[in-house]
Amino acid sequence: MEYRVLTDESIREYIKNIDSVNEYLGNEEIEIEEIGDGNLNFVFIIKSGDKSVILKQAVPYLRCVGEEWPLSRERMSYEIRALKTFKDIANNNIPNIFHSDENMSLIIMQNLNKHIIMRKGLIQATKYPNFAEHISTFLANSLFKTSSLYLSSSEKRELMDKFNSNRELCKMTEDFVFTFPYMKHDSNNINLLMQKEYQELIHDIGFKVNILKLKNLFMNKSEALLHGDLHTGSIMLNENETYVIDPEFAFFGPFGFDIGAIIANLIQSYLSHFERTKDEIFQEWVLETIREVLLDFEENFLELWDETKESALITEGFANKEVLYEYKQIFMQNIFQESLGFAGAKMARRIFGIAGVEDILGIKDLEARARVEGKSLKIAKRLVKEYEQIENIDELLDIIRGV
Amino acid sequence: MEYRVLTDESIREYIKNIDSVNEYLGNEEIEIEEIGDGNLNFVFIIKSGDKSVILKQAVPYLRCVGEEWPLSRERMSYEIRALKTFKDIANNNIPNIFHSDENMSLIIMQNLNKHIIMRKGLIQATKYPNFAEHISTFLANSLFKTSSLYLSSSEKRELMDKFNSNRELCKMTEDFVFTFPYMKHDSNNINLLMQKEYQELIHDIGFKVNILKLKNLFMNKSEALLHGDLHTGSIMLNENETYVIDPEFAFFGPFGFDIGAIIANLIQSYLSHFERTKDEIFQEWVLETIREVLLDFEENFLELWDETKESALITEGFANKEVLYEYKQIFMQNIFQESLGFAGAKMARRIFGIAGVEDILGIKDLEARARVEGKSLKIAKRLVKEYEQIENIDELLDIIRGV
Repeated sequence: MEYRVLTDESIREYIKNIDSVNEYLGNEEIEIEEIGDGNLNFVFIIKSGDKSVILKQAVPYLRCVGEEWPLSRERMSYEIRALKTFKDIANNNIPNIFHSDENMSLIIMQNLNKHIIMRKGLIQATKYPNFAEHISTFLANSLFKTSSLYLSSSEKRELMDKFNSNRELCKMTEDFVFTFPYMKHDSNNINLLMQKEYQELIHDIGFKVNILKLKNLFMNKSEALLHGDLHTGSIMLNENETYVIDPEFAFFGPFGFDIGAIIANLIQSYLSHFERTKDEIFQEWVLETIREVLLDFEENFLELWDETKESALITEGFANKEVLYEYKQIFMQNIFQESLGFAGAKMARRIFGIAGVEDILGIKDLEARARVEGKSLKIAKRLVKEYEQIENIDELLDIIRGV
Repeated sequence: MEYRVLTDESIREYIKNIDSVNEYLGNEEIEIEEIGDGNLNFVFIIKSGDKSVILKQAVPYLRCVGEEWPLSRERMSYEIRALKTFKDIANNNIPNIFHSDENMSLIIMQNLNKHIIMRKGLIQATKYPNFAEHISTFLANSLFKTSSLYLSSSEKRELMDKFNSNRELCKMTEDFVFTFPYMKHDSNNINLLMQKEYQELIHDIGFKVNILKLKNLFMNKSEALLHGDLHTGSIMLNENETYVIDPEFAFFGPFGFDIGAIIANLIQSYLSHFERTKDEIFQEWVLETIREVLLDFEENFLELWDETKESALITEGFANKEVLYEYKQIFMQNIFQESLGFAGAKMARRIFGIAGVEDILGIKDLEARARVEGKSLKIAKRLVKEYEQIENIDELLDIIRGV
């Protein structure tokens, strides 16, 4: 079908032929509502009785800016491919997909109406006791099973082919996470009370050398299929379920990048509550969650590895127990350390870059906000500059508590 | 044109319509001769008067084994793409290309009839005083200008797209360079006098852990377009000219892999002459050449980098001199060390793996050959196990002289 932007009316026409959607919705009258909460896309709820689905369509520009900011609608192709790939290997953490159409840049999927965007929940100091287990399972599955630790050499190259051309969105990360926030750039957005710290940062040699290292890893280490933008705004959850959404930034990159995004967002949530709620119990829960995410990830990842006898990297019969034990130690330590480096970059960019996080930006008192930003920057700098030396989770937690 | 295997007769038909070839060859009668020295492909010389060109066509099996060993003829597509890419950026080191045809899996190019396969020259203890300068220029250009240090983010991804699917040949390297030679495997070919050393190697934990590290780099670090099989049999040269040929293994991999292949082959040539000619002056020239290749590569690479103000990795205005200086030091040291690791793997696999090198295998006295193999293995083990600790070229040369 040739691409066209759908409206209420044309959606009715469009879904008439889609059995999976009609079967699910049943025969009652259909109501369609546009819920324009996205920066990039059009999102509709299609309701019929008590059933509903989401239809998401990409338009060839950045929706929140308008047609003058063109952005290829092919981003939806990568989102579709990533959702389908992740659905196959991490079923419980991906919404059900009823229909997808790359030509039309659209997908129809489960309406997560019993779930909340995690960032909003965290701002309200809501604890999610199963989050660590869920997200670490998702991370272990999505990363391990798209890597050369699980796939054959040729399967991995085939999968890479589907994502390698996600140029525009990779470039956005390269610019907005690894470059612009640490130099003079029009896109930056700096709290007046943080000008001094910003000036210090853009002249911090050790920080910038390591940002280049991390950017180089991001661009050149093609280890696994990443979500690519796994902040707490890309997670919808409740006490019992955790869903990962919006993987339009998906591409093959370093294991640590998605893990780092989660850690960064949790640290910034923790810091924001020094001003927001001063709820120490919630803050302790956040720190405990960071520990659990990292520990459970490692445990789940190693469990998957133990079950896998043959892969692109490890041919059966090549390595005995001692070799595998030693190699896995080095491998996991490397993922851990790079995760922390990426967490640092993700935190730093939220302070001075174009896209802040509501956890911090929502603090309207500029002095209070600057206190959170200052703490966040201190941690970010240490993570970026020292990630190769941080040995374990306790050291990480000491750094966080230290501010 | 639909694929078919060409013969003398059909080549005459085929080239009738190719102006570039006809213009070059002129109007004299054409003679065609098959020179079957390849393992993989059919190679013809097309002569007319004193002019001649080479026509190389891939068949869908491994030529040296026969039709029962299928190997996709698409390998020629990667060879064509790599030759064209390298020709654009390292013109002097790539033969002239008159015509190429991916559908027919064939290429017509300059006949290098004033040149010798470098391995044959080295076996005869011939010195090539300009080789180090030529190959280091080729390496610097081909690696730098296909990397994110030179290309834009999106140019690099576009170029990667052309090579990412070179699955079969990447898999061959993964198996035959990084896996089979270090385990029990039918494809291995072991000098009876080296059985003890082979047994030791396949139980050497430190060696195998680091082989896994290097294999992982090979598979997951997509830094630059590599030749992928740059041994001295893929180089044709004379005193004044050096040409790189046969890049059918081309893919995006780590900077150090091609450099390591050159270093490995030079070290093995050096070692072979303890038994072949005992020509110490030639051996000293080989060691001096290793030093020059590494030094000149670094100098050329850094010169290209200094000339480049904007790339995928480094945005103009991001990094001041101090940042760039420090980052470049770390970067070049990393390339150097990984080159030595890959050199070690390349050497080790030549001793026990399926494809030995004529420099060593051509020594018919098994005891003499074992002495060379033993020395080669000692160096290979140190390079693989210690590559991350070797600081400079003098340390490398000490290791080589030490055996």
